[in-house]
Amino acid sequence: MATSRLVEVYLDLLSQPCRAVHILLTCTKIPHRVHSVALRKGEHRTAEFTKLNPMQKVPVMVDNGFVLTESDAILKYLVTKYNVPEHWYPWLPERRARVDEYTAWHHTNTRPHAAKVFMLEVLLPAQFGAQVDQDRLERALLELDATLDKLESMFLRRQPFLCGDDITVADLLAICELMQPLGSGRDILKDRPQLQHWRSRVQSALGESFDEAHAVLFAVRDRWRARL
Amino acid sequence: MATSRLVEVYLDLLSQPCRAVHILLTCTKIPHRVHSVALRKGEHRTAEFTKLNPMQKVPVMVDNGFVLTESDAILKYLVTKYNVPEHWYPWLPERRARVDEYTAWHHTNTRPHAAKVFMLEVLLPAQFGAQVDQDRLERALLELDATLDKLESMFLRRQPFLCGDDITVADLLAICELMQPLGSGRDILKDRPQLQHWRSRVQSALGESFDEAHAVLFAVRDRWRARL
Repeated sequence: MATSRLVEVYLDLLSQPCRAVHILLTCTKIPHRVHSVALRKGEHRTAEFTKLNPMQKVPVMVDNGFVLTESDAILKYLVTKYNVPEHWYPWLPERRARVDEYTAWHHTNTRPHAAKVFMLEVLLPAQFGAQVDQDRLERALLELDATLDKLESMFLRRQPFLCGDDITVADLLAICELMQPLGSGRDILKDRPQLQHWRSRVQSALGESFDEAHAVLFAVRDRWRARL
Repeated sequence: MATSRLVEVYLDLLSQPCRAVHILLTCTKIPHRVHSVALRKGEHRTAEFTKLNPMQKVPVMVDNGFVLTESDAILKYLVTKYNVPEHWYPWLPERRARVDEYTAWHHTNTRPHAAKVFMLEVLLPAQFGAQVDQDRLERALLELDATLDKLESMFLRRQPFLCGDDITVADLLAICELMQPLGSGRDILKDRPQLQHWRSRVQSALGESFDEAHAVLFAVRDRWRARL
């Protein structure tokens, strides 16, 4: 079998880090093929997928036989390997370090705190038919608020994007997490003009690739609203 | 005032990520000056330190006026900027991606799970004079076990170091976390020959810089044993 010239990616677009990878690929026009892995159907636990990624997680990237997991690593690999515009992950050590600083922080802040709100409001009720646990939700929203405060007061304090004057992979990872609670119609940036302006800038920079990646999440939101 | 030629770092060597930064600096002989920030004395909350890092966390690096937080980012910046042996963070995209893959995974696996055991056995009892919560400790040890399984079966499956044939910053971050429970005399690698051999390889590669960075942790262990 001939070696494929396409980057193969295994994604569920309802997963935030998968959307970040999808957006980078479409936005920078890296030739690729998407394989859908529906988490809600347990497709990440099949024997075939487990052989590809024993961690049973998405996203997974396969580039000419090289198998890579972890969205953070995939994004940085793609921009390095595929010669996309330099602003995505600048070469200058000080500017690159700003992106690495945010992404390291992201894993224990933006990601878990925004994901928890979606889990409590959408995933758990859908999976177990239970009511939303209001106490846990309150606590999760407080933790998320502290993270949003830091995004505003530290990362966006004096610059239009999280790591400087132009969009980087850090903004991609962040926007996909912060969009997630929209699945239950909750706009967590509603009372935060500074983050709203950042979101607008990110959406403008991404164009159609943003909407394309978020279509599934928007459909979840619309079904949620119809049920109310 | 003349600009300093030294890399300035703010560290508490009882903090795992701080030790990783300290080891890289001493091992690769990057000229540096250490400023001690004793977390147990609250020195990370002083007005002066908060001005340097509003997140009130260590480590912090200052290189010729450039202030950087997050150990992961600091390590990668230092190896890039200071031209240390390439094996620490290889340039080849595939090999570099392996390091980024581990470090991304590290933040939500090795780090929290090993740190929790230390917190439950050493920090909380020392701070509040309370007994160790055995139920929580049991659960934390189970979670840690799952992480150690993955380190063995995935990262170390076919190679001597976490990301290939030579030591990288990934091994530094990992070893410092996995040593931490030794603070209460607990060797979490006791029944794991594969990880023990990896630890020996890492210690050999690091030489004195390993012992120097861990002297404070060993002192905590010795005091703990003396109390029993």
